[in-house]
Amino acid sequence: MSIDFSHRLEFYRRRLQAALDRCLPPADAYPARLHEAMRYSCDGGKRLRALLIYGAGEVLGLPADALDAPACAIELIHAYSLVHDDLPAMDDDDLRRGRPTCHRQYDEATAILVGDALQALAFGVLAHAEALPEGARLKMIQRLADASGSRGMVGGQAVDLASEGQTLSLPELESLHIHKTGALIRACLLMACDASPELTPDQQYALDRYGKLIGLAYQIQDDVLDIEGAAGELGKTAGKDLVAQKSTYPAVMGLQAAKQRAIELFDEARAVLAPFGDRAPPLLWLADHIQGRRH
Amino acid sequence: MSIDFSHRLEFYRRRLQAALDRCLPPADAYPARLHEAMRYSCDGGKRLRALLIYGAGEVLGLPADALDAPACAIELIHAYSLVHDDLPAMDDDDLRRGRPTCHRQYDEATAILVGDALQALAFGVLAHAEALPEGARLKMIQRLADASGSRGMVGGQAVDLASEGQTLSLPELESLHIHKTGALIRACLLMACDASPELTPDQQYALDRYGKLIGLAYQIQDDVLDIEGAAGELGKTAGKDLVAQKSTYPAVMGLQAAKQRAIELFDEARAVLAPFGDRAPPLLWLADHIQGRRH
Repeated sequence: MSIDFSHRLEFYRRRLQAALDRCLPPADAYPARLHEAMRYSCDGGKRLRALLIYGAGEVLGLPADALDAPACAIELIHAYSLVHDDLPAMDDDDLRRGRPTCHRQYDEATAILVGDALQALAFGVLAHAEALPEGARLKMIQRLADASGSRGMVGGQAVDLASEGQTLSLPELESLHIHKTGALIRACLLMACDASPELTPDQQYALDRYGKLIGLAYQIQDDVLDIEGAAGELGKTAGKDLVAQKSTYPAVMGLQAAKQRAIELFDEARAVLAPFGDRAPPLLWLADHIQGRRH
Repeated sequence: MSIDFSHRLEFYRRRLQAALDRCLPPADAYPARLHEAMRYSCDGGKRLRALLIYGAGEVLGLPADALDAPACAIELIHAYSLVHDDLPAMDDDDLRRGRPTCHRQYDEATAILVGDALQALAFGVLAHAEALPEGARLKMIQRLADASGSRGMVGGQAVDLASEGQTLSLPELESLHIHKTGALIRACLLMACDASPELTPDQQYALDRYGKLIGLAYQIQDDVLDIEGAAGELGKTAGKDLVAQKSTYPAVMGLQAAKQRAIELFDEARAVLAPFGDRAPPLLWLADHIQGRRH
């Protein structure tokens, strides 16, 4: 991976952090404990979803300031989903991004409210995004609501919880993850499309396909890392899936086959970018970057 | 109250129910348990917030089909907030709208996800509302996000939980309720304004003021009913505030003074509608209707 690209990732991460800083209420604003906990829950993380938005924006030739709002919104939704998923009634996790989870650092009621408030803020950020035309803002809100709701991310989480202790077939497992993590990752690419005034159907199709492939590859990789990764590197508890008796790709198709499948999906994701020619590198690099992650 | 008005309320309640039916996924759609629980959590209730939107729409001379989306959205937000507020880590309630609360009927994880999905749906409904111009939809989404987030409803709930066992002053109590219930009630009136293409600043000021007054009156009445009401009539557990050692208006200012204050606020709410002349009755009737509620 080029040094140039590493710099660019760092630039986008800092850009996102600054944008989040502007849209999150100050930590001392009333009610301070809630706002402090909201900021705590948005700290850190790999920011892959935001990077996909900025990367797609580069491929489409969009100015970065058209992408700050969707990048913030998607990271706020992602952060809220982690806070709620970690709750004792859900995955019951103590560790997230290398620190105590929100309900361990604060308390359970605060964690519920933090998630609720981050979700509202995500939609508010898009609705208030004056750098974008009204039509683009509305399309993004539609995508985010559809991708994160009961037919997307939240629906996937419901199926995931209901499937504990059950053995899923490969199609069932894939459907679960298309909802749970895939929908939101796909929305990153589509929101960048929404910001593009001169988008062709072929471009949208290619980016949508890239999003689907990366989303699935990411999840398979997650399952593999849960087995192979160390807690210190992961920043969350390793081996959780086994303990929770969750169906995973390695469990359903075998560890080596799962690793091979992820490689194929990443390769296919890079291949679908061909129509973008020499504009494709930011998303090619991101595919490499995600493929190379250790946590 | 006129028979005509009772019929009209029934008409709007049925209209809202039909609109909710259209926007909520079918109870057998995948994942079925989640969708069934979402519908369960949206059943019943007084629908006061939706009635305020339809009532304000009548006062402003708007067609009812411009108001279905905001009426649904506000009731979805209200329903999600009740599901989450009832959770064991929050108010820990077993009874809501005369039936088991969502986490008692289903389970805690489902209740968390139901709330999350209802919130996403609320914003989705507004973004997809083709009966409204793009600008109106965006303004409504801004209002709903601001009113329901950490500087509105969720912030109020956080302060409410943090205040248990503490004695609040009257200004602190009022600030709490302006956030917790007031912001969303006020948003009902303002969303109707957003749908109005020919709104004058005076009209918006009057409706905003009406919303603030009704919101506060409603909360004082809630505290009074918690003391005076019977569980059967309330549809929720009575005397909860006392048990939870919550500051209430009757506790802070005395029962009689609280009842008197509510009467004055309802009177003032009716008075601010004077500029609407003979268009005011729907909101005058609604003030009477809310003032006369027994639960």
